[in-house]
Amino acid sequence: MPSPRTDDLPAAFRTVMRHVAATVTVVTAAAGREHGMTVTAVSSLSMEPPALLVCINQRTLLHDLMLRGSRFCVNVLAHDQAPVSAAFSGTVAPAERFAVGDWRTDEDGLRFLADGMASLFCRNTATIPYGTHTIFVGEVAEVRRNGVERPLLYQNTQYCRCEPIDAVPA
Amino acid sequence: MPSPRTDDLPAAFRTVMRHVAATVTVVTAAAGREHGMTVTAVSSLSMEPPALLVCINQRTLLHDLMLRGSRFCVNVLAHDQAPVSAAFSGTVAPAERFAVGDWRTDEDGLRFLADGMASLFCRNTATIPYGTHTIFVGEVAEVRRNGVERPLLYQNTQYCRCEPIDAVPA
Repeated sequence: MPSPRTDDLPAAFRTVMRHVAATVTVVTAAAGREHGMTVTAVSSLSMEPPALLVCINQRTLLHDLMLRGSRFCVNVLAHDQAPVSAAFSGTVAPAERFAVGDWRTDEDGLRFLADGMASLFCRNTATIPYGTHTIFVGEVAEVRRNGVERPLLYQNTQYCRCEPIDAVPA
Repeated sequence: MPSPRTDDLPAAFRTVMRHVAATVTVVTAAAGREHGMTVTAVSSLSMEPPALLVCINQRTLLHDLMLRGSRFCVNVLAHDQAPVSAAFSGTVAPAERFAVGDWRTDEDGLRFLADGMASLFCRNTATIPYGTHTIFVGEVAEVRRNGVERPLLYQNTQYCRCEPIDAVPA
């Protein structure tokens, strides 16, 4: 039997998206001041040119800085970096967040996480506002990998890592 | 010490994106013919209105059908539906894919997965080509949930499920 239709559409949408697991990133920008925020709304977009997109709430400081600057960095967190995710999602004040994790600064003042899974340095090539958020398209100009193969995930308010299905008891 | 920079940028980008874990969905469209394809490039976009986006390779049949139609459905797979993902990513011919999983048909001929984690019925409200792919924005018009709380994931060529970090042995 098909499941019942939902009446409260926004609440049902939020519930489903909360149960969709996502890899955790910290997106950094540098336009006048350095800043970073935990973001899970990231998607691969194009292979040629290599490009990705991030969806950022318009009511955030990161959104303002990304509109003003031309570059941003998507730092993919390693499976043991839940404290970094927590710091950049609000448990630590913006000015103190970069003390959590091994953050470095590139020649333009853009922060990147030297001990994350990887950092994707992007040039912002398209900015598309939609509803409460904005899609920022980033063409990837440089990639740094750190030898970590497993990312940190977030699903239904919990930090997780991925377990291959064959290795998980039924 | 910072990690080395990469010279082969497209290859490095592909490697990083392959290691980013993602929830597996099957996106369906119906414009003249029914069709579905496994897609991991899905992101939540806006809360008001509720909207998501999917990034689809321009060289696929699904892309052509999504350009022609005005609706699509994002079916989030449950953790035990790796065979559905495999069928819709090429191991089964397009005409026979809907035999794998409990697929139903709505009043417009759009297919949805009655035993998946959830189905998000979308109206395509923006279409943005970029490089090899196109961003399709979908405003969510209806949500069906099926009581499943854990999705199927894909990471580094393996199907996975998410394990809360506290529950995983070090």
